[in-house]
Amino acid sequence: MAQGQGDYRILHEAALRDYLAGLPELKAILGGEPASWAITEVGDGNLNLVFIVNGDGGGIAVKQALPYVRLVGESWPLPLSRAHYEYLALSRQAQLAPGLVPALLHHNETLALTVMELLEPHIIMRKGLVAATRYLRFVDDITTFMARTLFFTSDLARSAAEKKEAIAAFAGNHALCKITEDLIFTDPYRIAEQNRWTAPYLDGLAASLRDDMDLHVAISRLKLKFMASPEALIHGDLHTGSIMVTENETRVIDPEFAFYGPMGFDVGAVLANLLMAYFASAGHARAPGERAAFEAWVLETVEQVWTEFARKFLDLWRAGAAGDAYPVSLFGGENGARRLEAERQSYMQRLFADTVGFAAAKTIRRIFGLAHNIDFELIEHPKQRAVSEARAVRLARAMMVETAAFPAIADVTGAARKLRDWQPELTS
Amino acid sequence: MAQGQGDYRILHEAALRDYLAGLPELKAILGGEPASWAITEVGDGNLNLVFIVNGDGGGIAVKQALPYVRLVGESWPLPLSRAHYEYLALSRQAQLAPGLVPALLHHNETLALTVMELLEPHIIMRKGLVAATRYLRFVDDITTFMARTLFFTSDLARSAAEKKEAIAAFAGNHALCKITEDLIFTDPYRIAEQNRWTAPYLDGLAASLRDDMDLHVAISRLKLKFMASPEALIHGDLHTGSIMVTENETRVIDPEFAFYGPMGFDVGAVLANLLMAYFASAGHARAPGERAAFEAWVLETVEQVWTEFARKFLDLWRAGAAGDAYPVSLFGGENGARRLEAERQSYMQRLFADTVGFAAAKTIRRIFGLAHNIDFELIEHPKQRAVSEARAVRLARAMMVETAAFPAIADVTGAARKLRDWQPELTS
Repeated sequence: MAQGQGDYRILHEAALRDYLAGLPELKAILGGEPASWAITEVGDGNLNLVFIVNGDGGGIAVKQALPYVRLVGESWPLPLSRAHYEYLALSRQAQLAPGLVPALLHHNETLALTVMELLEPHIIMRKGLVAATRYLRFVDDITTFMARTLFFTSDLARSAAEKKEAIAAFAGNHALCKITEDLIFTDPYRIAEQNRWTAPYLDGLAASLRDDMDLHVAISRLKLKFMASPEALIHGDLHTGSIMVTENETRVIDPEFAFYGPMGFDVGAVLANLLMAYFASAGHARAPGERAAFEAWVLETVEQVWTEFARKFLDLWRAGAAGDAYPVSLFGGENGARRLEAERQSYMQRLFADTVGFAAAKTIRRIFGLAHNIDFELIEHPKQRAVSEARAVRLARAMMVETAAFPAIADVTGAARKLRDWQPELTS
Repeated sequence: MAQGQGDYRILHEAALRDYLAGLPELKAILGGEPASWAITEVGDGNLNLVFIVNGDGGGIAVKQALPYVRLVGESWPLPLSRAHYEYLALSRQAQLAPGLVPALLHHNETLALTVMELLEPHIIMRKGLVAATRYLRFVDDITTFMARTLFFTSDLARSAAEKKEAIAAFAGNHALCKITEDLIFTDPYRIAEQNRWTAPYLDGLAASLRDDMDLHVAISRLKLKFMASPEALIHGDLHTGSIMVTENETRVIDPEFAFYGPMGFDVGAVLANLLMAYFASAGHARAPGERAAFEAWVLETVEQVWTEFARKFLDLWRAGAAGDAYPVSLFGGENGARRLEAERQSYMQRLFADTVGFAAAKTIRRIFGLAHNIDFELIEHPKQRAVSEARAVRLARAMMVETAAFPAIADVTGAARKLRDWQPELTS
């Protein structure tokens, strides 16, 4: 895997062509002469270079980490080692959730470069949601991905020794964790240079969040949980921009934020991004009710993502948990089985509360922090965008501070539905 | 530090003498000719060899790990690496709580051997408690030790990056963690070859614990917390057999179980062992009331250990927390300061609940598991011993299953006091 040390260089088009030409297995996929390959840089994420390379025989995707945050530039250095952790996570996810991540074709530690199958004609799910596309495979695929990757890396499935070794294997990815700690759990709640929001309309709301000490306690508890609850190998950035879809396929990409963290962070990320798509939808409608069916599908999907995830996770647990947690030897007999089943339900209830809190945190960061999303950004009129964003924030604030008021997923979707036409007071 | 690989050998008296003779700094402490040194093996713990070496100039203590569990023998292998983790923990504790651990004089990774100052005339605190000795320095010293070692290795004092690196540095100590996971959190609640208890008197109680599914859920939640809550660098075995005392000094020894785990496990260990000393005391009294003053001191000490620990921990937090958790920038102004202080109290309340649960777990394992303690074992009449043990178990069961009924430390001591003369039903 490792091809020497210290020889990192950024591979732009010509160098990349030469590099790929030297790898027979990739050359075979692409076919034809290297000079004939079409190479296009398509990275629209915040961190890396991404190339699509097409030849007569087929295509591949090449991802190379840069030694800084692409969105910001060289002033914000970021370790190349993230490519190592991404590769590690992707390999593990491929084992645990086969067919739901891109196939790995090549990895070079020194160049922080990974080559994967070209996902075609998949598009970034977020773009599809903006266009009101419904993805009928999505619930089944994403819940399989989450249930399997989270369950099988947790204390329910692993020995404590294996788990500790795995935690240690990802411990070095702390620079990526720090981005999350700062940009999601801290900056949106204080004055920070990189924050932005739909001004002036949300100026008042932004100020009120900065003064909202109940919210600051809640986000700080979530931050502590994010930092110090290595429950499972989480993707760490599981929004709808990290999911590529067709009507028939789902692929989860970009696990460079992966580490051992709280499961609710991944599940909450999916729910939050669906809820934002829901609130953004009104801003994309050209005629009243035009997107009503899509919006109904989104809320239904929110409900099913939780219920199907919980069902699959519980089924894996019931089917035979080989981990050191909740040893079956302590729950023998009919009474033991009954009590363990009740405890499984309690476990999921605690996980749901975490999920609700993290979903709220993922929402607020997209509206007041550095990184926004096209769900809201593509709403043409800023005032209309601010209305959609304020609705999402109102729900998120309640979910984070009054989490116990959302004991079931229907409480979340019910509250979202009620806010669909709520008119917030905006700063003018 | 490391003196080569694979040259481990057990140093019995002659070999140890030669080894020490080759180390000028230790030779200087001991004084005189090596042949004149008195070497005595004194290890009464469960895992290691411990030698006391005395020369004309002074004495030292030498601890060498064996590749197996001493208490059981070669059939139970145990990695020598535990000496590395013990050394690592001891070094860190010495920085954070100077004067409260033995001074480190020498360490050899290959031999899994550590040389420390000879603690003299210190005795193992547990022995003193059996003899009804009161230690008036104890509360202040042990609470300083716990508050400082726990606070300064937690997310309140460290960056998330430092914390993750530190967790990884101790991740390899999982064989020692596994001993705790099995012997404290699993075996006492099921049929296990190594379990023992005061038979026949506690046969019925032992059977009832094996059928008590509420208890099994509670111990399993605690086990999961032990495995997956790396809150701070914990000692991991902080009972009164790991504390050496004089009337004026306290030294915490033997941190070979150290790893990043839940703080309440350490605090609970101290409280549990004091509570066991309290319940055992009746069994050591040769005349009614003979040990009343001692018993009153023990319960007072239980209360003060918690209140002083909490006070010191909170003072460290208030004095300036440099960690990534609860960033001060989110709690500006008078309102922020007030809200953060309330959250600090909530944090301690959650820690107290953990402490109560772990204290209960540490009690039950000493009565039904493999490793017992002399507090109970030295009670001459088995029936009287069983009475004391049954009282401790009754309290422990309540603390573990009905933790919320013990919101304050006075609830624990109050319940203990009420059980002082309770007559359990024993199996005859």
